[in-house]
Amino acid sequence: MLAAGIDLGGTNLRAALFGDAPTTPLAVHKQRVGDERSPEAIARRINDAIDHLVAEASATEQRVVVGIGVAAMLADSHGGIANSPHLHWRDLAFGPLLDAALTDRPWVLYNDVDAISYGEYRAGAAKDQDDTIAVFVGTGIGGGIIANGELVRGAHSCAAEIGHVKVAFGDDAAPCACGSRGCIEAYAGGNYVQQRARRELSAGARSAAVDLAGGDPTQVTPGHLDAAASDGDDYSLALFDELAPLLGGVLANAVTLLNPSCLILGGGMLSRTPLFREHVITALEVAVNAPALLGLTIADAALGDDAGLVGSALLARRELDR
Amino acid sequence: MLAAGIDLGGTNLRAALFGDAPTTPLAVHKQRVGDERSPEAIARRINDAIDHLVAEASATEQRVVVGIGVAAMLADSHGGIANSPHLHWRDLAFGPLLDAALTDRPWVLYNDVDAISYGEYRAGAAKDQDDTIAVFVGTGIGGGIIANGELVRGAHSCAAEIGHVKVAFGDDAAPCACGSRGCIEAYAGGNYVQQRARRELSAGARSAAVDLAGGDPTQVTPGHLDAAASDGDDYSLALFDELAPLLGGVLANAVTLLNPSCLILGGGMLSRTPLFREHVITALEVAVNAPALLGLTIADAALGDDAGLVGSALLARRELDR
Repeated sequence: MLAAGIDLGGTNLRAALFGDAPTTPLAVHKQRVGDERSPEAIARRINDAIDHLVAEASATEQRVVVGIGVAAMLADSHGGIANSPHLHWRDLAFGPLLDAALTDRPWVLYNDVDAISYGEYRAGAAKDQDDTIAVFVGTGIGGGIIANGELVRGAHSCAAEIGHVKVAFGDDAAPCACGSRGCIEAYAGGNYVQQRARRELSAGARSAAVDLAGGDPTQVTPGHLDAAASDGDDYSLALFDELAPLLGGVLANAVTLLNPSCLILGGGMLSRTPLFREHVITALEVAVNAPALLGLTIADAALGDDAGLVGSALLARRELDR
Repeated sequence: MLAAGIDLGGTNLRAALFGDAPTTPLAVHKQRVGDERSPEAIARRINDAIDHLVAEASATEQRVVVGIGVAAMLADSHGGIANSPHLHWRDLAFGPLLDAALTDRPWVLYNDVDAISYGEYRAGAAKDQDDTIAVFVGTGIGGGIIANGELVRGAHSCAAEIGHVKVAFGDDAAPCACGSRGCIEAYAGGNYVQQRARRELSAGARSAAVDLAGGDPTQVTPGHLDAAASDGDDYSLALFDELAPLLGGVLANAVTLLNPSCLILGGGMLSRTPLFREHVITALEVAVNAPALLGLTIADAALGDDAGLVGSALLARRELDR
């Protein structure tokens, strides 16, 4: 049996076909999502992509199970999507559309970060670690939880939304794109950090990060802040002193709750901010329930951009190959 | 096959023998732990109690699997105990002692609140709710997590220590008996609330709760505070305004992470503070990731004092009857 992994984001629709080797695809395919992003069209394009992959792989086996990781908050385990700001979908029953388009190909739909996390668990940085938390700090903050060797989806498939764990309450708390306030993402997500720094530096705050950005405060990135902080820049260090305990505290509390053997850290922001990452881990170690720190390994995500393809294909096998 | 459930606390050693009915014991037994609480003696007394139960039940079946819930933070899944303030045990390999005492009776050892939570899941307030969080606010705060229908023990059996989730950081954070600072238990655990109120009221703060306690501030309980708050008492309401968002926030963040269909609330403090419980739930509803609130039921614990006996017997069957 073959397994297709689909990674459906706001920009790209990527697909890979796997045989027995979980991380080495037989064929891969990538297309822009583009402007035609009606759910019906996307469902058809997923099936077309799989047709294409099967032909390209010259596979004799024709049966394909399909795992789809979508950049969306889900509403249930049979294709219901609560909200996808990336795809501009809301309250969508995507399941019947997938049934219609994929015809005899069984499918499962997961949150994209859940699929990535499952890939890292089964074939990446957390291989054989049956209790794992993965947290990805990119433009936003997402996560995935493995407990007892199974992905924790939750009752309505919206578990592991660690970016929306609250670190502040009340009207002064930072507004988050989710509509709420005080989410850790609204403080330590890459977009929020970048926007805040650009705003404060444009308003006159001084930082060596501006020099690193060619003198233009509107071009400062988290990477510039991290480099400046490494050289003792007061502004960047003060920002990290505020944000690292918030993110470290959220990670610590998740570890206290779940006592994983592996905490995977990934995402574009953390990969470009090594000093910030270090401060976050120090804050985690202070705040975590001490027995849960024993035997905890903190690892970098290992599968990179392919984790979602690998993970969604493995989830399809896990759920459909029985 | 029979299953014995053991509830080993700091005060009582309770035991029950179950046949096919998961909540109706064939026989029950209770003794004081007393002063002789060496691990060897306790292990022998557990076996003696089971002998006694088997005889009392006049059971023809002699094979008994044993589930033990102990008031301790565990270190592993084969009998290692990190710390039990209640039993004055620390860094103890209890497993070999249980092997020696129980001879041919297979056993499993769990944290007592994990056993209680599993009992509520399998036979109590969260029956058939495969994703459940149980939180017990008594003198301290403990919890249990069920995900995908399985108890989440974590990699080293210390998951679900929700009482040690941090709500404050730094030197000003409240000291907790665990040795750390800022744990939610050190703010909203019954003992801490009671001690704080008695201290502040003895030092001159004014509250109708003192009248309810017969005029003696050193006799004020959380129940008095709740009754006073219901009548508009400023002191009690201010205290609740501070503590309810802290506890509600911790519960909300756990629900955001795990997306359970059922949140069980139990424990002596919450059962005596209905207004505080209401404030906590209101705070939870504000702070939780909105999609995780849909379909969430908040339920009272249903099995009362027997939950630990029921749960540990069911865990023994689950793990040993294969």
